[in-house]
Amino acid sequence: MKYDRVYNFSAGPAMMPEPVLEEIRDEMMNYQGSGMCVMEMSHRSKVFAKIAEEAEQDLRDLMGIPDNYKVLFLQGGATLQFAAIPWNLMKNGKAVYVETGNWSKKAIAEAKKYGEVIIGASSADKNFSYIPDVSDMDIPEDTDYVYICENETIHGLTFKELPNTKGHVLVSDQSSMFLSKPCNVSDYGLIYGGVQKNIGPAGMAIVIIREDLIREDLDPKMPVYMRYDIQAKNGSLYNTPNCWDIYCCGKVFKYLKSIGGLEEMAKRNEEKAKILYDFLDQSKMFKGSVEPGSRSLMNVPFVTGDPDLDAEVVAATKAAGYDNLKGHKSVGGLRASIYNAMPKEGVEALVEFLKKFEAEHA
Amino acid sequence: MKYDRVYNFSAGPAMMPEPVLEEIRDEMMNYQGSGMCVMEMSHRSKVFAKIAEEAEQDLRDLMGIPDNYKVLFLQGGATLQFAAIPWNLMKNGKAVYVETGNWSKKAIAEAKKYGEVIIGASSADKNFSYIPDVSDMDIPEDTDYVYICENETIHGLTFKELPNTKGHVLVSDQSSMFLSKPCNVSDYGLIYGGVQKNIGPAGMAIVIIREDLIREDLDPKMPVYMRYDIQAKNGSLYNTPNCWDIYCCGKVFKYLKSIGGLEEMAKRNEEKAKILYDFLDQSKMFKGSVEPGSRSLMNVPFVTGDPDLDAEVVAATKAAGYDNLKGHKSVGGLRASIYNAMPKEGVEALVEFLKKFEAEHA
Repeated sequence: MKYDRVYNFSAGPAMMPEPVLEEIRDEMMNYQGSGMCVMEMSHRSKVFAKIAEEAEQDLRDLMGIPDNYKVLFLQGGATLQFAAIPWNLMKNGKAVYVETGNWSKKAIAEAKKYGEVIIGASSADKNFSYIPDVSDMDIPEDTDYVYICENETIHGLTFKELPNTKGHVLVSDQSSMFLSKPCNVSDYGLIYGGVQKNIGPAGMAIVIIREDLIREDLDPKMPVYMRYDIQAKNGSLYNTPNCWDIYCCGKVFKYLKSIGGLEEMAKRNEEKAKILYDFLDQSKMFKGSVEPGSRSLMNVPFVTGDPDLDAEVVAATKAAGYDNLKGHKSVGGLRASIYNAMPKEGVEALVEFLKKFEAEHA
Repeated sequence: MKYDRVYNFSAGPAMMPEPVLEEIRDEMMNYQGSGMCVMEMSHRSKVFAKIAEEAEQDLRDLMGIPDNYKVLFLQGGATLQFAAIPWNLMKNGKAVYVETGNWSKKAIAEAKKYGEVIIGASSADKNFSYIPDVSDMDIPEDTDYVYICENETIHGLTFKELPNTKGHVLVSDQSSMFLSKPCNVSDYGLIYGGVQKNIGPAGMAIVIIREDLIREDLDPKMPVYMRYDIQAKNGSLYNTPNCWDIYCCGKVFKYLKSIGGLEEMAKRNEEKAKILYDFLDQSKMFKGSVEPGSRSLMNVPFVTGDPDLDAEVVAATKAAGYDNLKGHKSVGGLRASIYNAMPKEGVEALVEFLKKFEAEHA
């Protein structure tokens, strides 16, 4: 690879497109004749306002975000949103959560601070190795919203079909699948995610929220930073936003548009994932840990069944220039995160390496 | 200037040291042989852990932070800390705030959500043009802390002496003076600030807190992200931090050490400020808007007394390559923010320009 870069299979922060990094590098000392680096710009200056407006517009173009949705660029990651969502959205103090792994569990723990949480469905019985049936959940009439983590990064699960919310608002954490495929935004009331997995550097969450869900009659105890009404009214500029992240994400949005948008991205992601899953399905040494119908296109956990051998594989891949393949402790084994910016060549090379490893250790 | 950069007098985000930007640029495609950009690194990887540890250690060295203080790298800026501080620190539900301008006022508004706020002293009577007497404030025995905004960015005020807290904990917002001069950390219970004015890119606040002030018996409603106990226990890695900001700020810490630390920085800042204040004091056209005893070394607001002329000066400076000199709407006129990274040559050039402008418009 150019620049001696490695194939980085990290679950996040993760790879960014090389042409984007090159542009950022080239604009470091003087952004487009402004005489300053983007890190040095007043967030209220014209030059930065243009960067932020274009970033939002490009994201709207990519996802086809309808006009009655606001786009917010907020700090604190998904973790702060785990609290902000129930606190802002619970009018009746009740929500249905689907429990599919570590990230939905964290969201549930926070939501319980602000109201009643009903677990509509769960796959805890089999260590979150499948997406439970969500076609006919018990949803009380006065439920404020139904919540899913649409792609569980650690367990490697993804929803192939959205839940039947029976007319209620759907809220989705898309952190580890953001912009990985086309998304029909009007199916949701709120879509959000940390950007550090599939878009840009850590330090920002994007919240896409239908305007009628933004309330002003909120708990007076809520920190002003967390109020969607204040953030929306101020165009995410109530205080200084993470300007650098808006800039870098904006570059990625433009890059995605240039290669053909989310349809092309989905095609590439399906192709990459197929290479890896096909290998796992025929391997005698490695086995995917998720039921085929729930497999993520982004995060692919797999095991040998022998923790010592798992560790040996991780060490060997690392030595060969495939980084961050160690699985999360709650699943074990290995995990290859193959986000948007992972080239097909990276997946092919990894599979070749694993094949060779298997042959040598047969 | 090299790279055709401008002298940027923005109140924040603001200039960064040019050698730091050059290093960041040069490490963009492959950080020190890691094969990745820092934006792409897992926050739990060894290579990033080393970056974060060095950043913390360099900050500790620079400020002489005692071992019984924790250093936290948090998202959400000072604005989220306006709420986090009272919520985490108020045991008795009472604090004394000194009101000296917009930023202390915002902190007061948030603190009122979590307990009783007593205004110990205020300079609201003269539009915050001076630091009030804080040598003998009425401080109830059960006050949890005394709060100051040590340098008011908008009004251009700074505390030359810390308040007499009568044995109570002192909390200080140092956002716009962070690392501008030596600081005796043990005078404070908590020092914090957004980094985007005097250190690095927007998107992070640094909180330096004495360990015995970190409580676990907190309001169950507090978002986990805002809990100092959780953040301290996890070394600011409870969730993904703003890794890029930690990296950039770390570079600035190393740069400050290399030029002689905070004593040298203070010397340079005093010298720069003197050039500007000396000019204002002898000018017949321009006048500093702060009483001499309360003048900030970082933010220098000044006016002509005629809003149209003010606007003319701003336009002329901008055209001449001195950017972001427009004053904040609550003070009017002009404001030159001359943070650590503003070179002396920038201040000299600005003063020359203003002298010439005055001569031509006399």
